[in-house]
Amino acid sequence: MQPAMSRIPRAVRVVEVGPRDGLQNEQAVIPTAQKLEFLRLLSEAGLPVIEATSFVSPRAIPQLSDAEAVMAGLERFPHIDYPVLVPNMKGMQRALKAGVRSIAVFTAASESFTQHNINATIAESLANFQPVLALARQEGIPVRGYISTVFGCPYEGKIAVEKVLEVAQALLDMGVSELSLGDTIGVANPQQVYEVLDVLLETGGIPVERLAVHFHDTRGTALANVLLALQMGISTIDAAAGGLGGCPYAPGAAGNLATEDLLCMLHGMSISTGVELEKVIAAIDCIAPRLTHPPTSKYYLSACQTSTIIS
Amino acid sequence: MQPAMSRIPRAVRVVEVGPRDGLQNEQAVIPTAQKLEFLRLLSEAGLPVIEATSFVSPRAIPQLSDAEAVMAGLERFPHIDYPVLVPNMKGMQRALKAGVRSIAVFTAASESFTQHNINATIAESLANFQPVLALARQEGIPVRGYISTVFGCPYEGKIAVEKVLEVAQALLDMGVSELSLGDTIGVANPQQVYEVLDVLLETGGIPVERLAVHFHDTRGTALANVLLALQMGISTIDAAAGGLGGCPYAPGAAGNLATEDLLCMLHGMSISTGVELEKVIAAIDCIAPRLTHPPTSKYYLSACQTSTIIS
Repeated sequence: MQPAMSRIPRAVRVVEVGPRDGLQNEQAVIPTAQKLEFLRLLSEAGLPVIEATSFVSPRAIPQLSDAEAVMAGLERFPHIDYPVLVPNMKGMQRALKAGVRSIAVFTAASESFTQHNINATIAESLANFQPVLALARQEGIPVRGYISTVFGCPYEGKIAVEKVLEVAQALLDMGVSELSLGDTIGVANPQQVYEVLDVLLETGGIPVERLAVHFHDTRGTALANVLLALQMGISTIDAAAGGLGGCPYAPGAAGNLATEDLLCMLHGMSISTGVELEKVIAAIDCIAPRLTHPPTSKYYLSACQTSTIIS
Repeated sequence: MQPAMSRIPRAVRVVEVGPRDGLQNEQAVIPTAQKLEFLRLLSEAGLPVIEATSFVSPRAIPQLSDAEAVMAGLERFPHIDYPVLVPNMKGMQRALKAGVRSIAVFTAASESFTQHNINATIAESLANFQPVLALARQEGIPVRGYISTVFGCPYEGKIAVEKVLEVAQALLDMGVSELSLGDTIGVANPQQVYEVLDVLLETGGIPVERLAVHFHDTRGTALANVLLALQMGISTIDAAAGGLGGCPYAPGAAGNLATEDLLCMLHGMSISTGVELEKVIAAIDCIAPRLTHPPTSKYYLSACQTSTIIS
């Protein structure tokens, strides 16, 4: 009868990916000053990790071409980690010059996706990270590893969980400290989350503390997937304020799991996060008018009207 | 480690409440012919139970003032149950005259809500149902009992689970065959779903087959709540095509859990429903242009764009 409620962690570390993964997939190009205000408000909300930007090619992702300016203007709050995405050695060198002290690298569990996304095989993408990771180790910089398309690929469909485990172990062997398992196109369901996590944790023996989950809410299943992950002991969850990010494969559809939807559920379950939900809403209010569409999160859409009635 | 996946039922009975609970809470008044087409398309999709209309006062709910015409024009598919809501003896007599063979009654777990909603205490509302249930028994008509505000009330906030159990047992004692536990304002979280179901099933000894869950997706938690209910063995789940119903307390916010979001998750988890998801989408396409707002479901918003890419 007991559905593993006892394994649900009492505290969750929310990794805010709105300013990077979110804005990268929005059509709107946000002025640097507005991004800095967004980052400041997210910091005030108490989010423990805020992915600030990405040192990718400005031609590839013009939305984040101001990475240097963002890092220069960033008001760093104590005890908050501000990692950035780094795709290669060039990005790593730019990041170090900008004073970055925490980075993330990314690959995928699908060969077709990696080929389409970065024009390389998975093995080539891992090989490209070797010097980045060596430099990070030398500089004492922790590295998060993103694995995209863990639960499905827009080109290949379902991905073999053995492939996910193989990529996960390769990244850990290379010195990545945390893995974020991404449902890039929002197709995961709780049964699949159970199956993938079971293989990584039990077959692979990966310590649960080293795994984070990163769900997209394209089909509304993100919070159900989060619940299953919590029941498996996962306590690091990615989310984007306002559900920023859209879905590049379905214009108008929802993207990243919204931070406010996640917080609403976690706090309701008496799981602490250290984050103030209402201050996240304030951060969204600051960025929302600059987007080409209204935020997609259910909590945000209902928040203003119901706050006076429901205690 | 095993988060009770083994207790998840292999088949779920989806109770479609769009034509009644959905349309009752929409501003738009839909012409009878359009409702009949909506009902026909939902029947073609294979939904096993479709709540067709409500025999309430036409003054109270003008959206459903054509109950007699709907029942007269309804094309009944074999093996599909078409219950209607009945608020009192007058409604019951109208329903019987219209050839109804299955009904639902409703009360709430919150005294304040019942007072505001139907100007009666919970005890008075139950007493009012006595003759309705006696007549139903006499006619061999099964009765479903809705309990609103099980997980929270817009006036009282959280509701004591003992109160829910008391109302549930009173309805079962009166001869109701199935209880639908309603999260009327969409405030439930999975921890609370666990606590409420645990009391009803374990303390109350209510057989799991007699319980259904009815979640609103106001804050995006409906599918996570469904997952927890499935893990507790619940296999009857209410939903409304297109997420019809809005939220009367938050204009613009999401209402009932959308049938298509529910089906997408269940089918992904290899839980059979007998319902064809794409035919539900066709039913929504028929009603959507008549609404005052676009459907709120994430699946519906993403469906058209991604169907060509994702197999």
